[in-house]
Amino acid sequence: MLSAKPLPAYLLQRYNGWKATTYTENRAWYKRLATEGQRPRAMIISCCDSRVHVTSIFGADQGEFFIHRNIANLVPPYEPDGAQHGTSAAVEYAVVALKVSHLVVLGHSNCGGVQGCMQMCSGEAPHLEETSSFVGRWMDLLRPGYERVKDEPDAETRMRLLEKEAVLVSLENLMTFPFVREAVEAEGLTLHGLWHEIGEGGLEWFDPKTGLFAPVGQGAAG
Amino acid sequence: MLSAKPLPAYLLQRYNGWKATTYTENRAWYKRLATEGQRPRAMIISCCDSRVHVTSIFGADQGEFFIHRNIANLVPPYEPDGAQHGTSAAVEYAVVALKVSHLVVLGHSNCGGVQGCMQMCSGEAPHLEETSSFVGRWMDLLRPGYERVKDEPDAETRMRLLEKEAVLVSLENLMTFPFVREAVEAEGLTLHGLWHEIGEGGLEWFDPKTGLFAPVGQGAAG
Amino acid sequence: MLSAKPLPAYLLQRYNGWKATTYTENRAWYKRLATEGQRPRAMIISCCDSRVHVTSIFGADQGEFFIHRNIANLVPPYEPDGAQHGTSAAVEYAVVALKVSHLVVLGHSNCGGVQGCMQMCSGEAPHLEETSSFVGRWMDLLRPGYERVKDEPDAETRMRLLEKEAVLVSLENLMTFPFVREAVEAEGLTLHGLWHEIGEGGLEWFDPKTGLFAPVGQGAAG
Amino acid sequence: MLSAKPLPAYLLQRYNGWKATTYTENRAWYKRLATEGQRPRAMIISCCDSRVHVTSIFGADQGEFFIHRNIANLVPPYEPDGAQHGTSAAVEYAVVALKVSHLVVLGHSNCGGVQGCMQMCSGEAPHLEETSSFVGRWMDLLRPGYERVKDEPDAETRMRLLEKEAVLVSLENLMTFPFVREAVEAEGLTLHGLWHEIGEGGLEWFDPKTGLFAPVGQGAAG
Repeated sequence: MLSAKPLPAYLLQRYNGWKATTYTENRAWYKRLATEGQRPRAMIISCCDSRVHVTSIFGADQGEFFIHRNIANLVPPYEPDGAQHGTSAAVEYAVVALKVSHLVVLGHSNCGGVQGCMQMCSGEAPHLEETSSFVGRWMDLLRPGYERVKDEPDAETRMRLLEKEAVLVSLENLMTFPFVREAVEAEGLTLHGLWHEIGEGGLEWFDPKTGLFAPVGQGAAG
Repeated sequence: MLSAKPLPAYLLQRYNGWKATTYTENRAWYKRLATEGQRPRAMIISCCDSRVHVTSIFGADQGEFFIHRNIANLVPPYEPDGAQHGTSAAVEYAVVALKVSHLVVLGHSNCGGVQGCMQMCSGEAPHLEETSSFVGRWMDLLRPGYERVKDEPDAETRMRLLEKEAVLVSLENLMTFPFVREAVEAEGLTLHGLWHEIGEGGLEWFDPKTGLFAPVGQGAAG
Repeated sequence: MLSAKPLPAYLLQRYNGWKATTYTENRAWYKRLATEGQRPRAMIISCCDSRVHVTSIFGADQGEFFIHRNIANLVPPYEPDGAQHGTSAAVEYAVVALKVSHLVVLGHSNCGGVQGCMQMCSGEAPHLEETSSFVGRWMDLLRPGYERVKDEPDAETRMRLLEKEAVLVSLENLMTFPFVREAVEAEGLTLHGLWHEIGEGGLEWFDPKTGLFAPVGQGAAG
Repeated sequence: MLSAKPLPAYLLQRYNGWKATTYTENRAWYKRLATEGQRPRAMIISCCDSRVHVTSIFGADQGEFFIHRNIANLVPPYEPDGAQHGTSAAVEYAVVALKVSHLVVLGHSNCGGVQGCMQMCSGEAPHLEETSSFVGRWMDLLRPGYERVKDEPDAETRMRLLEKEAVLVSLENLMTFPFVREAVEAEGLTLHGLWHEIGEGGLEWFDPKTGLFAPVGQGAAG
């Protein structure tokens, strides 16, 4: 028999509150979403971290964003080897089936996954090197980023750079997917790299012209 | 040079609105979350589908839920083969590092991934059978579920059953992870299977005693 | 020998019900709360009144709110005189030890303590003026509020204003505590004044810009 | 100008959920409570600790319990000296004005206030000895309890005993209030001492016949 328990009371209470307010006030739209299917404008790839509240930051409403969340917002390179690639499947579905217009990779400060990668790559976390460590193997994706930042002497700056590399490595890997590259070249899709500072509520975007992250503007895009 | 564009204006606008209101009103808490780290009570595994608005349904606030979202809310079986398993990494991080108390698998109606699986398994979607189809290979995870529902004659009922199988297969697979099993047996973790009906705003939970999904209660858990 | 009796049957029954349901469904979380300690996001100061159901109104779950309840939700001014100040001790513990992010003073309609204060201050309740009246001496804290509202001619309006003064006097007094002021100035703490209408289930917040209480919004804060 | 901010969004959301469900479903009762006043059957004195969820443990509904919460659920001795005694005021109001039938002192495990008292009394927390420490001066109330348990050699047992002393000292002090003693002797009021174990969800009651705390029964009172 499966191990499964009733919904904890606090979640049930929250759900009942949502049903009686947000759902009730938007019933017509939700019914239409169910009937007509979703038509999201953007895909967002962010971290599972509970402090990265994507839907809050972007005021997301039901039906707006196709959201994939994994550890450290990483996208692996294109590897059509028949194995299971959850992130690649999500990207494929968003770009090929849903034809989203924007694909945003959202990194963040204080990322536990990135911190683990830093420790692993610098030899301080042997348990993450083990074959059986899912987190370690997943963070292997960020090793190319580590190589680019490892010589930064200041520890805090180095961590911040690696968090941003998690965005850059993902953007690089995205372009190895033929369907992503084609959509970008056909101007049907734009890619965006962001980094969110949790404590200050900051948001920086990657500007390929300068090769740096810079605060997003207050009044205009970028 | 990387392909990356400035943040689309509508997202910048939303972010600026969030910064001036929600962030400002909760600055003290966000600073504390950044300094002290996250301590989420629950992990939620849900679909990337833009209509499954996890944070809205459960009134989630910053720091409350560790959320992994992939196509069709699937968890693969335990396979410590050194390859990249993003979902397994997320589960490992949540259970081992964060020690979440609840792990909720949230399925939903009108799921495009599940629909693709149904078509693929019944021979109607040869393109999903190809090695190069990431969505197809990902949905292979649900084949054991398809086997259990394929004899249901009514098409709509069959689809609904398969959507719920996506929850059940994931719950089964979760228990193949040694660290999940141990946490469940030590009463440090409870698993929960839910299915969300988008149009009606409904929520059903899997009750292992009956082997069926039933609407969650209005006043009490289950 | 101490005077103490067994738990009344109705409370025992309630507890047994809780243990078999809510506790059992949330055992993992409660164990973790016991081991790791509390980390409440907010402190709430409310009245002891049985009709002010703080945890219900805010859907509070175990571990979320540090709650101090006294007669008329009053906070005395800062008086480090070595005497016993239970409310000041609670505020100190919440702000200094627990570092809560929000401190909410929740007043309410139909408050018996405030009514007593009104009668006492207007000379209609001599028994409350006696040295031995604990309620009278406690309500002395609200005398500055009475002075500000006493000229309001309509009795019902006057009472309502005094209930709200119980919130304002407390907010004023809170800022006389050095550790509260410092936390507020360092943006580590925000203060909030609320007034709850019991019969209508209403909730108003104090807006310092207007100097008035106004209904909280339906969709956004304030 | 007073320092006060709008209600944080998460609390507003919770409130709106409550208004649309619990309030709406119970409107008639809440209106009556507002009109007729409260008539609580019991007063509960518990700790402010966010993990001591009094209303959950006893399935409390609006109007049932008059609840006073302070650090370590302490009641000071009767001291009609004209100074402000918030706890004594709450007890006076409950017994004299509301005429509650039961007065329950609810202690708990893992109490930060009791831990502070232990450290202070054993000389390990000089900052709590300072005149300006509100927590320290408040915990002075428990010094008689410390004297009775200080010779217990096992640290964990000693802490547990002191947590229970916080209940016993309060029960003793309650009987020094003339109006409490009179109500008890007239059989209009019963006193109850409880201790709640957070991790296990346990509940023990003080039995004056044995002088010990014992688990409350499963089927009958005590």
